[in-house]
Amino acid sequence: MATVRLGHRPVLLIVDVQVGVMAEAWQAERVIANVKTAVARARAAQVPVLWVQHGDAEMPRDSASWQWVPGLGPQGEELLIHKAFNSAFEHTPLEQTLAQLGATHLFLAGASTNWCIRATAYAALERGYDLTLVQDAHTTQSIPLGDGQEIAAESIVRELNVVMQWLSYPGRRNAVAKADALDFNAAGAAHG
Amino acid sequence: MATVRLGHRPVLLIVDVQVGVMAEAWQAERVIANVKTAVARARAAQVPVLWVQHGDAEMPRDSASWQWVPGLGPQGEELLIHKAFNSAFEHTPLEQTLAQLGATHLFLAGASTNWCIRATAYAALERGYDLTLVQDAHTTQSIPLGDGQEIAAESIVRELNVVMQWLSYPGRRNAVAKADALDFNAAGAAHG
Repeated sequence: MATVRLGHRPVLLIVDVQVGVMAEAWQAERVIANVKTAVARARAAQVPVLWVQHGDAEMPRDSASWQWVPGLGPQGEELLIHKAFNSAFEHTPLEQTLAQLGATHLFLAGASTNWCIRATAYAALERGYDLTLVQDAHTTQSIPLGDGQEIAAESIVRELNVVMQWLSYPGRRNAVAKADALDFNAAGAAHG
Repeated sequence: MATVRLGHRPVLLIVDVQVGVMAEAWQAERVIANVKTAVARARAAQVPVLWVQHGDAEMPRDSASWQWVPGLGPQGEELLIHKAFNSAFEHTPLEQTLAQLGATHLFLAGASTNWCIRATAYAALERGYDLTLVQDAHTTQSIPLGDGQEIAAESIVRELNVVMQWLSYPGRRNAVAKADALDFNAAGAAHG
């Protein structure tokens, strides 16, 4: 599966930080601030920022809910990738774009943790990329259960941070890091 | 990515229902009973059962903790696949085995929900298979957090059941089903 090893360049992938996604997300204000920190650090380090924006029947392209939250979105020559499924790799040019950049290490932030972030994270690892999840720059909504209970968004966020630290994929590295401490030149693949 | 479409046969994949994995898992007794139900239904329907068994430094091959729990394990000509990483596809002959069987629809049960089950589930979808998670036949342990809180195993199990029902991958189908109602001839890919 690990076919993409043309270079060793990092990229920052920002997924679905859109009005309609963030409106009821857990601690959205804090998370958006951390996404901004991650973007600023990438730009300062001249690391490419790729923007992935979701559109579907419930959140149509160009609608109010589809827009990036204020203060986020592509600047200058930064690339925007439209998607319609959970994984940012499905029916998009993401993989080709990464190959053109020579990128093999994805830094990932955005929403929602257990939908598009998780699907994109596992997709990246499956496709042979190193992955760093920006642990304080992703969020989701709690899930109401029919029995009156709910699955708390905070639990979902913390759980993915644990798992993305300790999973083991041969030939590539998964890790987590805080937005204000991102090291885009950290070593890549460590596992055997 | 979806390269495996040689046939339309279902298989039941049982992952890591081993002594050392199940010892402290949430509701292990109930889940093991449901795994047994799923296996019995597959055998009755002449659906191949594939057994995936984990071995590593912490759970060495042939140790007591490495054994299948009593009453489970390969019978007759059922295949056993050894793995050493979270995903059952990593450094194993699983993909080739599925191709030889003409299998494109994986029914998945076992442990642990947020480690090897989840990694295997996303790997299967990434590689183009249809996936049905046996919703009452997988489990995990709660995760203690440094601050005295924990992420409850029950939340992790229920969350994956929600997500595996509603994710959307073009060209393949993901679903959940209860062990005593498994329909191995259910239609395959619906999306895309």
